[in-house]
Amino acid sequence: FSTASGETVRATLFPGDGIGPEIAESVKQVFNVAGVPIEWEEHYVGTEVDPRTESFLTWESLESVRRNKVGLKGPMATPIGKGHRSLNLTLRKELGLYANVRPCNSLPGYKTRYDDVNLVTIRENTEGEYSGLEHQVVRGVVESLKIITRQASLRVAEYAFHYAKTNGRERVSAIHKANIMRKTDGLFLKCCREVAEKYPEIAYEEVIIDNCCMTLVKNPGLFDVLVMPNLYGDIISDLCAGLIGGLGLTPSCNIGEGGICLAEAVHGSAPDIAGKNLANPTALMLSAVMMLRHLQFNNQADRIHNAILQTISEGKFRTADLGGKASTSDFTKAVCDHI
Amino acid sequence: FSTASGETVRATLFPGDGIGPEIAESVKQVFNVAGVPIEWEEHYVGTEVDPRTESFLTWESLESVRRNKVGLKGPMATPIGKGHRSLNLTLRKELGLYANVRPCNSLPGYKTRYDDVNLVTIRENTEGEYSGLEHQVVRGVVESLKIITRQASLRVAEYAFHYAKTNGRERVSAIHKANIMRKTDGLFLKCCREVAEKYPEIAYEEVIIDNCCMTLVKNPGLFDVLVMPNLYGDIISDLCAGLIGGLGLTPSCNIGEGGICLAEAVHGSAPDIAGKNLANPTALMLSAVMMLRHLQFNNQADRIHNAILQTISEGKFRTADLGGKASTSDFTKAVCDHI
Ligand SMILES: CC(C)[C@H](C(=O)O)[C@@H](O)C(=O)O
Ligand SMILES: CC(C)[C@H](C(=O)O)[C@@H](O)C(=O)O
Repeated sequence: FSTASGETVRATLFPGDGIGPEIAESVKQVFNVAGVPIEWEEHYVGTEVDPRTESFLTWESLESVRRNKVGLKGPMATPIGKGHRSLNLTLRKELGLYANVRPCNSLPGYKTRYDDVNLVTIRENTEGEYSGLEHQVVRGVVESLKIITRQASLRVAEYAFHYAKTNGRERVSAIHKANIMRKTDGLFLKCCREVAEKYPEIAYEEVIIDNCCMTLVKNPGLFDVLVMPNLYGDIISDLCAGLIGGLGLTPSCNIGEGGICLAEAVHGSAPDIAGKNLANPTALMLSAVMMLRHLQFNNQADRIHNAILQTISEGKFRTADLGGKASTSDFTKAVCDHI
Repeated sequence: FSTASGETVRATLFPGDGIGPEIAESVKQVFNVAGVPIEWEEHYVGTEVDPRTESFLTWESLESVRRNKVGLKGPMATPIGKGHRSLNLTLRKELGLYANVRPCNSLPGYKTRYDDVNLVTIRENTEGEYSGLEHQVVRGVVESLKIITRQASLRVAEYAFHYAKTNGRERVSAIHKANIMRKTDGLFLKCCREVAEKYPEIAYEEVIIDNCCMTLVKNPGLFDVLVMPNLYGDIISDLCAGLIGGLGLTPSCNIGEGGICLAEAVHGSAPDIAGKNLANPTALMLSAVMMLRHLQFNNQADRIHNAILQTISEGKFRTADLGGKASTSDFTKAVCDHI
C-alpha cells in the first residue's frame, strides 16, 4: 500500500499483553481492507520476556517510535516483583508523552444512561501525583509529592487549546482543586489562563474537580474540551468512559516530544479471556483511527470509523463485554464488510 | 420539649452564610412539629463579621460544639482576602472532624438517570491532599505534600467498619491509587486491611479510584460502604451526589474527636438566592435527621425522614433547583404537614 504520492508510512505496533495480540490483529485486518498505506514495525513490549534478555522493554522498541513518530499500543500488564514500574508509565516517561487525549462520544445504537456525551479529556501525562516521589517521614507518617511545573502545564494547555481550535471545539475547561492546592493547581491554572489569552476564539472556564464530577454525571453535555493535571485526568477520563459504556469503547492517543503520536487502548490486558477470540477490539480500532487522523489519512480514517460505528449500532455482532455473543473475529469481519 | 426521661438535649446550630439562615429556620420548624426535645445553641459562624471583633469564628462557637458534642451546620462561604482558609476546613481541624459520612440514596419520586443508588461514602477528613503543605522548589516548579498517617487511616477505617456493622451494611470498599502512590495510599490500604480482619462479617475489597468512578457511573448498585483518603472522598462523594440529583439532596455528618457529631449540608451558600425564600432545605433537613439518629431519637428521625421523602416523592412542592416553583416555606410546610 502507499499514499497518493506512492509513499508508505512506517508505524510502530506494540500489541502488548493478554488480549493485545488478538485485537492488534483485528486492526491490521481492518487497515488492510481499507487500503491504509502503513507498514507496521512490530515490537513486543510486555511482561512475557525472553529468558535470555529478561528485558520488558528493549531499546529497539523505543527507537522505533522515536524514528517513526507514530505508533499504536495495546494493553501492557505490570511486571510483578520489586522495583518494576508500570510499562505504561515507563513509555510515558521515555517518550515524553505529555498529553493523553481521549475523545468520548456516545455511540449511536449502544445504549447507556447517557446519549449526549461529546467531549474530549486532555490529561497532563508526565508529572503531578505521578512523580514517584514518596517517603516515610517517621514511622506511621508517609508523604507523596505532587509536582507541577510551569513548563509541563503550559505544554499541555497549549496542546488543549490547539486541539480545540483545530477540531472545531468551542470551549476549554481547566479542572482543578486550586481552592485547596493553591500553589500546585494554582500554577496549573495560571498557565492555562496565559494560553487562553492567545486563543480569544475559544471560551475558557475553570471548574473544581468535585463539581466537575457531579456535573459530568448530571449533564455531561455541558462539557467540551477538558484539560487537567495527571491524576484528575486519570479519574475523569475513566468516569467519562463509563458514561458511554466503558474502556472497551474509548480511544486514546498520547502526544509526545518531537511530535510523537502513540495511540493506545487504555483498557486492561484481560488475561482471563486472552487467546480465546472473545476480546472487543473497538477501543484499539478507534485508537488506530486517531492515529490515522494524526497522519491526515482522513479518507481511510472516516471509512474505518463509520464502519465501526455502523457495526456497533446494528448490534448484530457484539462481543461479550457488551452483552453479545460475537467473537473478536466476527466483529472484525463485520467492520471489514462495512468498509 | 423533652425526652422520655424528661430531658432536653442541647445542640449547637451554625446557620451559616447565604441561604443558611432560611434553611436552618426550616429545620427548626420541622423539629418543633415533630416534638424533638432539642434546645438549640445558635452561633453565627461565617463571613459577615461583627466589625468590632472582625472574627469569623469565635471561641464560644467551638466550645459550644465541644460541650454539646452534637450540632448542625449550614453552608459557610470562604472569607476573601489573604491568609484566610476556608471556615469549613478550620472547623474540621479545630474539632478534629476525622470522618465525613455521606449516605447517598436514590429518592423515590425524584427521577434521575439512576434509581438504584444506595451507598455511603466515608471520607478521611483531616489530612491527605489537604495538608496545606506546599511550596515553590525553584521558579516554575511547585510541590504539594500529601500526608497519610497510620493513626488517621486506622481511625477512619475503624469508623467505616463500625458504621457498616451497626447500619446493616455488608461490604466496605477502600478506594485508592496505591498502584501509583504506593507508600501513601499503600499505608492507607494497609490500615484498612488491619481493621477488616477484626470484622470478618463485613466483606472487604479494594478498588482503584479511576475504576471506581467508572463503575459508579455504570453500576452504582455494586457499592455499599466506601472509605477513602480526603481528596478521593471529596471527588467521589460529589460524584455520588450527582447520581441522585445533586448536593441539594444529600445529607452529611462529620464525626469528630471525643464523639462529636456535626451534621452538615455540603452545598454552597448560594448568595444569589439568599433571603428570597427560594432555597431547598432538603440537604440540611436530611443532615438534621442524621444528627437525630446519632442521638438515637429514632422515632422522630423516622417521622421527619419519611415526611421529607413523601414531600419530594409527591412532587407538588419542589423548589426551583429541582425544576419546581415552591418556596422554601412551601416545602417546609409540606414536610411539617406530613409529620
Ligand atoms: C495502569 C495505570 C498506571 C494507568 C494510570 O494510572 O495512568 C491507567 O489507569 C491509565 O489511565 O492509563
Ligand atoms: C469547600 C471545599 C473546601 C470543600 C472541600 O474540598 O472539602 C467542599 O468541596 C466539601 O466537600 O466540603
